[in-house]
Amino acid sequence: MNCEIISVGTEILMGDTVNTNATYISNRLKNLGFFVYYHTVVGDNPGRLKNTIQTAYDRSQMIIFTGGLGPTQDDLTKECVCDFLKLDMVLHKESVDAIKNFFKDREIFRSEENLKQAYFPENAIILKNEDGTAPGCIIESEGRIFILLPGPPKEMSHMFEKEVIPYLSKFIDGTLYSRTLRFFGIGESELVGRIKELIVNQTDPTIAPYAKDYEVTLRVTSGGKDKEKCESLVLGTEKKILEIVGEYYYGDGDTSLEMELHKLLKKYDLTVSAAESCSGGLLSSKIISIPGSSNFFLDGIVSYSNLSKISFLKVEKETLEKYGAVSAETAFQMAKNIRKISNTDIGISITGIAGPAGDNRNDNVGQVFIGIDYMRKMYCYEKNLIGDRIRIMNKAAMWAMFHAIKLINKENE
Amino acid sequence: MNCEIISVGTEILMGDTVNTNATYISNRLKNLGFFVYYHTVVGDNPGRLKNTIQTAYDRSQMIIFTGGLGPTQDDLTKECVCDFLKLDMVLHKESVDAIKNFFKDREIFRSEENLKQAYFPENAIILKNEDGTAPGCIIESEGRIFILLPGPPKEMSHMFEKEVIPYLSKFIDGTLYSRTLRFFGIGESELVGRIKELIVNQTDPTIAPYAKDYEVTLRVTSGGKDKEKCESLVLGTEKKILEIVGEYYYGDGDTSLEMELHKLLKKYDLTVSAAESCSGGLLSSKIISIPGSSNFFLDGIVSYSNLSKISFLKVEKETLEKYGAVSAETAFQMAKNIRKISNTDIGISITGIAGPAGDNRNDNVGQVFIGIDYMRKMYCYEKNLIGDRIRIMNKAAMWAMFHAIKLINKENE
Repeated sequence: MNCEIISVGTEILMGDTVNTNATYISNRLKNLGFFVYYHTVVGDNPGRLKNTIQTAYDRSQMIIFTGGLGPTQDDLTKECVCDFLKLDMVLHKESVDAIKNFFKDREIFRSEENLKQAYFPENAIILKNEDGTAPGCIIESEGRIFILLPGPPKEMSHMFEKEVIPYLSKFIDGTLYSRTLRFFGIGESELVGRIKELIVNQTDPTIAPYAKDYEVTLRVTSGGKDKEKCESLVLGTEKKILEIVGEYYYGDGDTSLEMELHKLLKKYDLTVSAAESCSGGLLSSKIISIPGSSNFFLDGIVSYSNLSKISFLKVEKETLEKYGAVSAETAFQMAKNIRKISNTDIGISITGIAGPAGDNRNDNVGQVFIGIDYMRKMYCYEKNLIGDRIRIMNKAAMWAMFHAIKLINKENE
Repeated sequence: MNCEIISVGTEILMGDTVNTNATYISNRLKNLGFFVYYHTVVGDNPGRLKNTIQTAYDRSQMIIFTGGLGPTQDDLTKECVCDFLKLDMVLHKESVDAIKNFFKDREIFRSEENLKQAYFPENAIILKNEDGTAPGCIIESEGRIFILLPGPPKEMSHMFEKEVIPYLSKFIDGTLYSRTLRFFGIGESELVGRIKELIVNQTDPTIAPYAKDYEVTLRVTSGGKDKEKCESLVLGTEKKILEIVGEYYYGDGDTSLEMELHKLLKKYDLTVSAAESCSGGLLSSKIISIPGSSNFFLDGIVSYSNLSKISFLKVEKETLEKYGAVSAETAFQMAKNIRKISNTDIGISITGIAGPAGDNRNDNVGQVFIGIDYMRKMYCYEKNLIGDRIRIMNKAAMWAMFHAIKLINKENE
């Protein structure tokens, strides 16, 4: 089926927002066996939007829209599509309730603006939005499929996974088995280079690499009528991939470093605490972002100054003077002492230079030491991270979790 | 001048690459006063590429292409544009030399493939590529301007800055004045509702609302030949907007809550420390993410358990027992004690329930108390935040910064 994606939003044309929605949908459709031939971005302008719909109508069987479903006057996607197809809209009772429910205990519900979001053509399939007020919809008309999704990436992707994919399954012939393998600490081109033989020499399963938020994923997919054969092909390829680059692998599916760490802490009944310098609390906040973390995360200290490293973390003054705040020795003491002070099984420390200018006589931006005290055994990892300040802070916190995951796995083998 | 951007590359349609080139060019053109009305992405397919050129030709005066200038058979942009315009190509001597020079000391020069990159229509303006082998070009034909740029973002952006902007300067007629006002603590529909009169009743300046990352921006823009008039129109409208919703305003332009807080701490020579419970270090990490924060951020404590609130932060046991960890009283003590312990001018605390299930007998997910000890004057703010755990953590940290900004401004009026 020929598909195209139309993203509606002046903010994209102004260069204020990157069109990651089109990337996401394209990637998912590709893996489901659909062909995407065009992306278009058009502003919140009814004339240009209608021309864009006409162009898409003339060449594609499925047209997926993102954006323009909001409550304001300049949110026009649904209105323009219905106008183009000459469809009347009616108030959809369930959506009214869902929107009102969303506004419960919130900012004031503005009936005029928000109820606009509950109008749909009579035969449309309504797509629930659990993350916002704008429901989406699917309109089947004149031999074509129009799928309207909200613009905020999180709302869009959740709706796509929960509502659109089940709808699309009727167009997929046979079954599709897919696994998403997650890697950290290796770049996309390096990873792809190492498994090039596998990628080049086989077409089933396909291996699709994708880099995002400092990690790389490989989606291994096989489709066909025989479900068991698909599964076994995917798992066989997965095994071959992990034989080559398994040292960078940390989990599969809809997971993250913090979720994997959480799973292990729970599994082995371990508690953790963190002492952070250059990452500024980011490691603690990532660990705490997982529900239930109060059971295993006990304390965090952001000791940004040398003074607080001494007063809160009892790092020895001599160590700081002799080796500096950014050193393996300081990282060791920070990890050991936060574990002792908090009385946890694991203590993790991060000290480094996040840049842009060195905060230290050692002007080595990106140098980071990660200390882990795991049941009184000490580990230290030195990194030389590249990027701006926020990137270095993020990577440092992610490396700390990655090493903790590998360590807990190893110690409990 | 009406512009559009055509990005050529199957990898974008496959979802393997995000189209950041279009974002970059759009942003630059906006600031130069050009209007971008469409982005299109099309694959490396001559038929579809030519149809896309035809559509763009019919509606735009300037068409900017990225991608498809490489040495391989499926790099077709230049060929398709010339075919569409019925222009012959000739070998461009300087480009041959540049390409050969590029290959000096590098991978093997492949004459057949690489020389393809040195062919251009006779009257084209050649754009040098200092970062790769593909020169770009500008073709003025049939009253339209075709600008062809390479796909790799670094090559594209360098060429755009060094070669395209000087070319475009001759078309810049008049001026464009724009201000971006940033608001926190109010939803997009609520904000737009409140200033609806202003939005509906005027066309110059325009007011464009946009919601992203828990905040709302309004871009107020005026264009014309008279620079002073544009500025005064924009500033007049800005004044009217702030009279209505100024309580939610925190800054303008390319800024953020953490950057505004940074500016004020620097301006008034203040230091800050943070004691966080439910936000888990996110406030500290946001403050520290700004370069130079070591001058004003001293310490952070993530006291997730009651025990650490007592041991690290010296919160009184009686207070925790009587009022609970999530209370104004606990927030007060946390803010006061972190300020005292760290010896800073300001102490900020956050305690609350990030959910999804209450961690506490008070099962009120989203209830957050923010305490601020500003030069020994105590302030406390109660919030009822909505959303998932990560959303509540983020909003809590942002509210804390927002209140600190408002407070510092007020105290130093």
